[in-house]
Amino acid sequence: MAQYIEPIGKLINQFTKLPGVGTKTAQRYAYKIINMTEEEAKEFAESVISAKKNVRYCKVCGNFTDKDVCDICSLRDGSVICVVKEPKDVLAMEKAHEFKGVYHVLHGTINPMEGITPNDIRIKELLARIREGAVKEVIMATNPDVEGEATAMYISTLVKPLGIKVTRLAHGIPVGSELEYADEVTLSRAILDRKEM
Amino acid sequence: MAQYIEPIGKLINQFTKLPGVGTKTAQRYAYKIINMTEEEAKEFAESVISAKKNVRYCKVCGNFTDKDVCDICSLRDGSVICVVKEPKDVLAMEKAHEFKGVYHVLHGTINPMEGITPNDIRIKELLARIREGAVKEVIMATNPDVEGEATAMYISTLVKPLGIKVTRLAHGIPVGSELEYADEVTLSRAILDRKEM
Repeated sequence: MAQYIEPIGKLINQFTKLPGVGTKTAQRYAYKIINMTEEEAKEFAESVISAKKNVRYCKVCGNFTDKDVCDICSLRDGSVICVVKEPKDVLAMEKAHEFKGVYHVLHGTINPMEGITPNDIRIKELLARIREGAVKEVIMATNPDVEGEATAMYISTLVKPLGIKVTRLAHGIPVGSELEYADEVTLSRAILDRKEM
Repeated sequence: MAQYIEPIGKLINQFTKLPGVGTKTAQRYAYKIINMTEEEAKEFAESVISAKKNVRYCKVCGNFTDKDVCDICSLRDGSVICVVKEPKDVLAMEKAHEFKGVYHVLHGTINPMEGITPNDIRIKELLARIREGAVKEVIMATNPDVEGEATAMYISTLVKPLGIKVTRLAHGIPVGSELEYADEVTLSRAILDRKEM
C-alpha cells in the first residue's frame, strides 16, 4: 500500500484511534493539520492536552467538569437525581431544557456478557447520595436497551426500599436507539411522561 | 444549545476545523480523547506538533518529505516527470504501482475564478527542472476537471516547444464499472480514445 513518510504516518495512525475514523479520513485530517499554520497546529495540540489534563469527573455526580464539583451539582435542585449512563447523556438531557434537578452518571450499565457487574458502575455512590437525605426522586434515564433497562430495574430495587420515588423516562424514546440521538421534543415528552417504577 | 465546559468546548471547536467534521462528530472525538490515558493523549498531541514541524516540501518535486529532497526524487528515474495537483495525488499514483519516474506537485491548478494564476502554482519550478536537461517526458496527471484540463493544456504549451514529450493520463470508463453509469463526457472520450484490440 501507499507509503507515508514517518511523521505523517504517525499522525494518520493517531487519527485512526478516533471513533469511526479509517485510513482515508485520517489522511485527510493529517493533510489538514500539515496545511495549518504552525500556530494553529500548536493550538490544536494544546487543546488536546488541556482537555485531557483539565477535565475530570465531578466528585458528586461523575459528570465531566473542570472543577471539584460541577456547576449543575453546585447550583441546582438536589432533590431530584437523574441517573444516566454516560456524560454525553447529560448533554442530551440538558438540550431538552426540561429537567431542573441534578444528575448521576453511572459510567456504564450492568452487562454480564462483558463482565460489567453492579460494582463496576457508580451505584454505591448513588446510594450514598440518597442516604444523605435530601433526595426525593430518582429518575432512571439509562438507554432503553437491554442493559439500560436491566440497570434501571436493578437500581430501582435498591432505591425504592429507602422510601424514594423511582421513575423511568417514558417510552417516547424509540426502543433500541440511544439517548444521545433522541430529538429534543421526544426527550422532553419522555421527561414529562416519566412513570413510577 | 448544550453547554460544554471550557476545555471540552475548545477541543470540540478544534476538531470541527478538520474537513467534514461537525459538532456531533467532534464531540465523539473529544470524548475519546478524554477517555484516553494521559500518555495516549500526549502522544496524540505530539504527533500533531511533530507532523507540522517535521514535514516540509521536497525542494525538487514539492511533495511532502521529512528530508530536504524526498526519497522518490533521490532514488528514482528522473527522466519522466508526472505532474500532479496535490501531494495526495502522488499517493494515489503510487498505489497503482505502475509509474517508476518522479513527480512534480503543482500545489493547485489554474483557476481564474478563484484568482489562481499560473504564477501561483509551481510551474516555473517545473520548467527549471526541465531546463536542467535530463527530462524526456512529462506526464500530465492533473484531475480531469475544468481546472485540471486547463492547467494541463497550459503547461503542455510551455513544455512542448522545449522538445519534451508531453502526455496526459488516458480518460475512459473506470475499470470494473458499468457502461450504464458512465457519464456522457467520459463515454465520448472513451469512444474517441478507443484502442485496437
